[in-house]
Amino acid sequence: MTAEDFRTIWRKPGDPSVIQIIDQRLLPHEYHVHDLCRWQDGLVAIRDMYVRGAPLIGATAAWSLYLAAVEEPSTARVREAADALLQSRPTAVNLRWAIERVLGLLDGADANADLAALIANEAQAICDEDIEISRGIGEHGVRLLEEIAARKNGARVNVLTHCNAGSLATINWGTATAPIYFAQQRGIDVHVWVDETRPRNQGSQLTAWELARGGVPHTLIVDNAGGHLMQHGQVDIVITGTDRTTRCGDVANKIGTYLKALAARDNKIPFYVALPSTTIDWRSRDGVREIPIEERDASEIRDVYGVLDGRPAHVRTTAADTPIRNFAFDVTPARLVTGLITERGVCEASEAGLVGLFPEQGAT
Amino acid sequence: MTAEDFRTIWRKPGDPSVIQIIDQRLLPHEYHVHDLCRWQDGLVAIRDMYVRGAPLIGATAAWSLYLAAVEEPSTARVREAADALLQSRPTAVNLRWAIERVLGLLDGADANADLAALIANEAQAICDEDIEISRGIGEHGVRLLEEIAARKNGARVNVLTHCNAGSLATINWGTATAPIYFAQQRGIDVHVWVDETRPRNQGSQLTAWELARGGVPHTLIVDNAGGHLMQHGQVDIVITGTDRTTRCGDVANKIGTYLKALAARDNKIPFYVALPSTTIDWRSRDGVREIPIEERDASEIRDVYGVLDGRPAHVRTTAADTPIRNFAFDVTPARLVTGLITERGVCEASEAGLVGLFPEQGAT
Repeated sequence: MTAEDFRTIWRKPGDPSVIQIIDQRLLPHEYHVHDLCRWQDGLVAIRDMYVRGAPLIGATAAWSLYLAAVEEPSTARVREAADALLQSRPTAVNLRWAIERVLGLLDGADANADLAALIANEAQAICDEDIEISRGIGEHGVRLLEEIAARKNGARVNVLTHCNAGSLATINWGTATAPIYFAQQRGIDVHVWVDETRPRNQGSQLTAWELARGGVPHTLIVDNAGGHLMQHGQVDIVITGTDRTTRCGDVANKIGTYLKALAARDNKIPFYVALPSTTIDWRSRDGVREIPIEERDASEIRDVYGVLDGRPAHVRTTAADTPIRNFAFDVTPARLVTGLITERGVCEASEAGLVGLFPEQGAT
Repeated sequence: MTAEDFRTIWRKPGDPSVIQIIDQRLLPHEYHVHDLCRWQDGLVAIRDMYVRGAPLIGATAAWSLYLAAVEEPSTARVREAADALLQSRPTAVNLRWAIERVLGLLDGADANADLAALIANEAQAICDEDIEISRGIGEHGVRLLEEIAARKNGARVNVLTHCNAGSLATINWGTATAPIYFAQQRGIDVHVWVDETRPRNQGSQLTAWELARGGVPHTLIVDNAGGHLMQHGQVDIVITGTDRTTRCGDVANKIGTYLKALAARDNKIPFYVALPSTTIDWRSRDGVREIPIEERDASEIRDVYGVLDGRPAHVRTTAADTPIRNFAFDVTPARLVTGLITERGVCEASEAGLVGLFPEQGAT
């Protein structure tokens, strides 16, 4: 297994003017590599969630601008594509960031420059930098697993994770999964308890799939089961990802993360959160009070996706008129977080811990 | 609304030699009253889970013996039916208890007695006693909701519950739901957060259905959401049922209950468990160590039941070969339980609390 095995976006071998992605909508039931030939294909892939996860959305947008320049090497065409792409997932922060980074090139570009090549370099750089972040998280996080393995005299290390903070959300390696893949490569006997992650089932549909593909032993459980496993010594460490971390180490992540942190604390099990430093909100302190929690459509709970007779299908699991509320995230207070795993190292979930690793953020 | 509205088993109006039940397999998508005309119909209803919940299983078995006696008023026929019924759900404690209670009648019965009438009386007594237990739980538990309503000056009281400890598991009123139905009848503005309860979705399929039928305002959430709601003041009290309670107040209930108890403790929200005293295991002390946790088939997690184009259907939500483990229950330690609501009153979750209410169990 090499790093490339986990890759989520790449230039087509033999035809570098085509970009390839995995159509994640079909996972785990079908593995389909999808060609992006025109920039509009990229827009559809982002809008219709062929790809998800902030880093991967940003990279897909950058490569879509490359496709626009291949089609017509004019800044007008690239800006037109950028305007449309910005509308595809309006709330995705990385989407805007990646597009603005590419547009920044246009202003200073030589009129005779090869526009497509210029943008391809930038898109590649965006991908490479994200891979380096995952690698950093993996290298720092794997030490935690090595310590546990040593303490257990090489016996199996059981990790519990929630949602998908895996390679499928990034360009490669993932965030919460990076230490796990690194541990496996170093010969540690690692096993992952995969929370199903209702309502969207990212655990059963994405995390279980990518762990299987990477050959990492894993077991799917319902979100309700983690506390029971921890009570019975079946979990050595919890590692999750996060969507946003405050300056003081509070962590917003997929709904249900807080419950696992409580169970870890009650059973004296370390609870770590893996994050690229780009997701730290340095202006925010109190996560429970300050981070707005998105409410999503009731249909995500009501209608469950799967396969029936080999074909994709949704079944309605509730009465048609059952009132439903669907909160997408919750906030785990820093007091429940043993540590944060970043690309620069592992630190305490506190302002002192974070500013220690990121001294350039010391002034408030 | 009267008590009869919640009834789960009854003699057919106009034809008391037929017993009627709700086919709970079809809920919430279809409400179908099913006739038990022969004792074998009762066996199928228990075995194939038309009915579930310990009290209702016991009552169905008792009424099935009545049907056997109607068919042929001989003790041999009744014993033959009893042997078969005992095999229908081998681990259901109430099944054996109800059958043995009816068989006990046969030994002392006058040879000229009307066997069917004798058994009907006993089956009716079993049902009546269970209803009295639910009524007791409701009357003691409703005071907790009245106190909250008074403290909130009549503002809405938000209850969170997990799984179905509702009327559908008993003969009427339920256990965890009894205080809620009583509160509604007394004019308290009560609203229930209903945990979906993966993997079998008893919350979305049974609890939401029976609350809707009873006109109790409710909202379905995923099991992951309770902690977030508690952090934001949206839950005033948690009430769940239990399958088994130890002498010291540890509580075994549907998987995930422990996580909600942790969140309640972290947010200083009262966490109560409603139980018939018949489910107290007076010989057991340490629930986490002593109560064996049933593991069930992986298909319960893998295949999700619902409707598709108006018809019942299952979809497979995972890859076909994903390893799965399915733990049915977990244990909530007494230290996380604010109190136990029994038919005799509310007590502390401790040996002192339980023996105070049940002094006849004082000697160990």
